[in-house]
Amino acid sequence: MKTGLIGFGKTGRAVATVLLQHPEFELEWVLRKSNKQEGRRISDVLEVENTISNGTVVSMDSTSVGDLLDQQPVDCIIDFSSEDGIYYYGKEAARRAIRIISAVSHYDELQLRFLKQLAEKTVVFWSPNITLGVNYLIFAAKFLKSIAPFVDIEIVEEHFKQKHGVSGTALKMADSLGLKKSKINSVRAGGIVGKHQVIFGFKYQTIRLIHESISREAFGNGVVFVAENLTNKPPGYYIYEDILKPFLNEHA
Amino acid sequence: MKTGLIGFGKTGRAVATVLLQHPEFELEWVLRKSNKQEGRRISDVLEVENTISNGTVVSMDSTSVGDLLDQQPVDCIIDFSSEDGIYYYGKEAARRAIRIISAVSHYDELQLRFLKQLAEKTVVFWSPNITLGVNYLIFAAKFLKSIAPFVDIEIVEEHFKQKHGVSGTALKMADSLGLKKSKINSVRAGGIVGKHQVIFGFKYQTIRLIHESISREAFGNGVVFVAENLTNKPPGYYIYEDILKPFLNEHA
Amino acid sequence: MKTGLIGFGKTGRAVATVLLQHPEFELEWVLRKSNKQEGRRISDVLEVENTISNGTVVSMDSTSVGDLLDQQPVDCIIDFSSEDGIYYYGKEAARRAIRIISAVSHYDELQLRFLKQLAEKTVVFWSPNITLGVNYLIFAAKFLKSIAPFVDIEIVEEHFKQKHGVSGTALKMADSLGLKKSKINSVRAGGIVGKHQVIFGFKYQTIRLIHESISREAFGNGVVFVAENLTNKPPGYYIYEDILKPFLNEHA
Amino acid sequence: MKTGLIGFGKTGRAVATVLLQHPEFELEWVLRKSNKQEGRRISDVLEVENTISNGTVVSMDSTSVGDLLDQQPVDCIIDFSSEDGIYYYGKEAARRAIRIISAVSHYDELQLRFLKQLAEKTVVFWSPNITLGVNYLIFAAKFLKSIAPFVDIEIVEEHFKQKHGVSGTALKMADSLGLKKSKINSVRAGGIVGKHQVIFGFKYQTIRLIHESISREAFGNGVVFVAENLTNKPPGYYIYEDILKPFLNEHA
Repeated sequence: MKTGLIGFGKTGRAVATVLLQHPEFELEWVLRKSNKQEGRRISDVLEVENTISNGTVVSMDSTSVGDLLDQQPVDCIIDFSSEDGIYYYGKEAARRAIRIISAVSHYDELQLRFLKQLAEKTVVFWSPNITLGVNYLIFAAKFLKSIAPFVDIEIVEEHFKQKHGVSGTALKMADSLGLKKSKINSVRAGGIVGKHQVIFGFKYQTIRLIHESISREAFGNGVVFVAENLTNKPPGYYIYEDILKPFLNEHA
Repeated sequence: MKTGLIGFGKTGRAVATVLLQHPEFELEWVLRKSNKQEGRRISDVLEVENTISNGTVVSMDSTSVGDLLDQQPVDCIIDFSSEDGIYYYGKEAARRAIRIISAVSHYDELQLRFLKQLAEKTVVFWSPNITLGVNYLIFAAKFLKSIAPFVDIEIVEEHFKQKHGVSGTALKMADSLGLKKSKINSVRAGGIVGKHQVIFGFKYQTIRLIHESISREAFGNGVVFVAENLTNKPPGYYIYEDILKPFLNEHA
Repeated sequence: MKTGLIGFGKTGRAVATVLLQHPEFELEWVLRKSNKQEGRRISDVLEVENTISNGTVVSMDSTSVGDLLDQQPVDCIIDFSSEDGIYYYGKEAARRAIRIISAVSHYDELQLRFLKQLAEKTVVFWSPNITLGVNYLIFAAKFLKSIAPFVDIEIVEEHFKQKHGVSGTALKMADSLGLKKSKINSVRAGGIVGKHQVIFGFKYQTIRLIHESISREAFGNGVVFVAENLTNKPPGYYIYEDILKPFLNEHA
Repeated sequence: MKTGLIGFGKTGRAVATVLLQHPEFELEWVLRKSNKQEGRRISDVLEVENTISNGTVVSMDSTSVGDLLDQQPVDCIIDFSSEDGIYYYGKEAARRAIRIISAVSHYDELQLRFLKQLAEKTVVFWSPNITLGVNYLIFAAKFLKSIAPFVDIEIVEEHFKQKHGVSGTALKMADSLGLKKSKINSVRAGGIVGKHQVIFGFKYQTIRLIHESISREAFGNGVVFVAENLTNKPPGYYIYEDILKPFLNEHA
C-alpha cells in the first residue's frame, strides 16, 4: 500500500518507523510544515535499516499538495498533524479517491462536518487515539455495560509526572460509558508511559480491563490495522467501531 | 419466577441466599441427597431475614421428583448438584416444560447428549462456571483474539493454598483461546478467593483482562442473570454465549 | 495467653473467631455494652467448633470491671470498642498489670494522654488498623521514601460502594509519607473488600506496594501477632513500628 | 565525581546517557573492546546535548589501562562489561584507590575471590542488577518474610516474548527468599519491558510488591545512587544491602 504521512513530530516519527519496517506498506513521503531535513530519505533520518522504501521528507513550504499527489501518488494518507491539516490536503485527496486516515487528537464541529463532506468521495476515518488496544478496551467496556447497566464503573489512569490535565483517552472512555468526569482517577508519577484501567465493581466480583502503553510505536501498529481493514470499503465516514464490529461475526 | 434448587453444598447455599433476597424469585424448594434439615424453611436454615419465600428443604430420600414438581411446581430448576443429578430430575422436568439451568462443573459426552435430548422439549442451559464475570471475560478475550490472531496470550490464575491442580476456569479459558495448558501460570498463596488474568502482549502495548471473585454469591447472581435472559426462549440447548451475544446488537 | 475482648461488633466477632481457634490463646470473656447473648459460650454464639475455650459473653450492664478482672483474670485485654472504652476498664487493668492492646480507630489528644498515663504501669499498645499487612506496607513505604526522598508517590484505595469518605488507612498512609490528601485516589465500586496501593514513580521504573483484604479475620491475626510480640516487654506505650523494627536486626 | 565506564552495549550506553546528564558526574571516558567510534566525544555519539563532559570513547586495542588511568584519572570505575573485564583493569584501579562499581550479571567463585582481594585496597561493589527498585524489593521482601516466616510466597515475572529462560532477577529474588525455582511463574508476551511481582499470601490478606521497568536508564540511576552512597566508605567489599541498611536508622 502506497502511503503518505502528514506530520513528523514524536508520534509521526514512531508511525513512520513502523510503516518503513512493514512489508506491505511503502512510505512514499512525509509531509511536514518545517523545511528541516527536506529531501532526505525518511529511512536515513530515522535510521531504519533494510527498508525498500525510498520515500523522502517533503516540506509544505516548497510543494503544492496537488503536485505531490500527482508526482508521488499514494493510496492512503495518514494524518498526524494538527486539526487544520485537513484543509490543506483534504480536497485534493478526496478528488483523487485517496483514503484519509486521521489520528488528529481533536476536531471541532466545523472541521468534523468538512471530514464528512470529503467522505462522500472517498474513505475517511478518524480516531483521536488510533491504537488497537485503547479502542478494543472501549468497545469491550461498553459491551459489559450493556450487559450489566447498573454495575459501578471507575477509571484509573496513570501517566508521567509532567502530563497536564486528565488524559484525553480516559475522558473518551468515560464519555463512551456515560460516566461523569469525577469517576476518573488520575495518577501522575515518575515516567509511567501510560496506563488506563476500567474497574467494574459487582457485589461479589470485580472485572478490570487494563491497557498499558509501552511506546509510541503502538500508534504505528494501529495505523497498519486500520489501513488494512479499510482497503475494500466504499466511500464514507468511518470510526473505530466500524472496523471492530465485523470481527464479532467472524468470532460468533 | 418460581424456582427449585438442586444441591445444597457451599455454593448451593450461597446461590439460595441470593435467590431468597431477590424480589423476582421465589425459591419453592431445595432438593438435596441428605435428609439433614429436612422440612425446615430455607430462609431459617440460611438465616436470611425478611424473605417472602416459604420454600423448604426437601430430601431425595423421602420424595419422588414427579410428586414434588406436581405439588410445588416451578418454572425453572437450578442444578448445583453433581454430574448424575440430571438423570434424577431431567425427564420429569422436561415433560413439564420446566427450564433447566445446570451449573454442574463437568459432564461427560453421554450426559451431554442426554441434556441435548431434554432440550427438544424444554430450555436447557449449561455452564460449568455460571458467573457473569468469567463468561464475559472469555467472550471478550476470544473477541480480541479474533481481531489480533497473532498476539501472545498467557493466563495467570491465583487461588488459596489448598486448591489442587490448575483451575478449571483457567483451563476453559485456555481451551476457548486455543492455548496450550503450559500458558497457564498457577499461583497458590494464602486465602486468595480466586483471580483470573488474561494477558495479551503486543509489541508496543499490553492488555489485561482480570476477574476477581469476592465470594460464592457471585454464582447466585450468575443464576439470576441467566434465568432472566432465558425467560422467553424457545426449547433448545443454550450456552452462555447465546445469552451474551444479543447484547452486542443492543450495544451496536 | 488468657485474653479478654472488649467490643462485639462485626470486627470484634471476627477477632474472637480467630482467637478461639488459636492454640495459644484462651478467650476468657467478651465484654459488650448490650446484654444480648449474655452468659452464652462465645464459641456457641460464633459457631466455632472444637475450641477448648469456655469464655462467655458478659454485659457491662451487669458486671463491674474490677470484679470481672478478679474472677476471670486475663493477661491481656483486646479493645475493639469505641474511643471512650478505655475509661471504662483502663485503670482497673493497669493496676493489675494487664497488657492493653487497643485497635480503636481514633483517639483524641486527651484520650491518648490517658493511654500514656496507663503505660507507666503496664504495656499499652495502640494501632487504629491492627493488621500486619497494612502496618508492614506503611513501614516499607516510609523506608523507600527515606532512600528516595524525591520520588513521586500516589495512593489508590478501593472499597465497596457504600463506604463513605476517604479510607482512614489511606489517610494514615498519606500522613506517614508526608503526602497531601489530594494524592489519595478513592475508587468505590461494588463489593471490593479493601485494597490499598502505594505507587512510587521513578523516571525509569515504578514500584507498587499493594495490600488486599480478604476478610475481617485479618484483624484477628494482627491481634495475635501483636500480643505475641508484646509478651516480654516492660511497661510503656507501644506502636506498631516498635514491634516491626526488632525484625530488621534479625533480618540484617 | 570523575567517572570511567567500561562496556558500551545497550545498557552501557543508557548508563552513559544518564551520567552525562547528571550535574555531579563527569564521564571522563568509556572504554570498550571494539575500536568503533574511537576518539569521538561520548556526548556526540549518544546525541546528548548541553553536557559539560568532554569524555571520549577509548578502545582497549589502542590503550593500556595504566596509561589511561594516569592521563585521564577517575574517582570511580563503572563496569558494565563481562565477567572477565575485572582482570583487565582491576589491579591498576585498586593500586590507585579508584572505587570499582561492577554491574556485571555474573561472576564465578574465582572471579569473586579476586574482587574481594581488590577490596583490601579500595572500595569494591558488586550487584548483578544495580537498579534501586529491584534491590529495594528484595530487601523489603526479605524483611516481610522475617516477620511472617510461614507466609506463602510466589513470584510472577513478565518479559518480552524473546527473553529466554527464567529472569535472573527473579532467580535472585527466589534465592534471597529461600524459595524453590518452581515458585517463579514466567510470562513471555509481546514487548513487556520487565515486571517482577512478589506475592505474599496470608489467610485473610494478600501483599504484593511489584517492580516495573520503564527503560534501561534505570540502571544509570542505580549507578548514581550507589556511587553517591559509596563516597566516604573505607576500602572493602560491598553489596546493595550495605547501602540500603543505613537508611533504616535514619528512618527509625
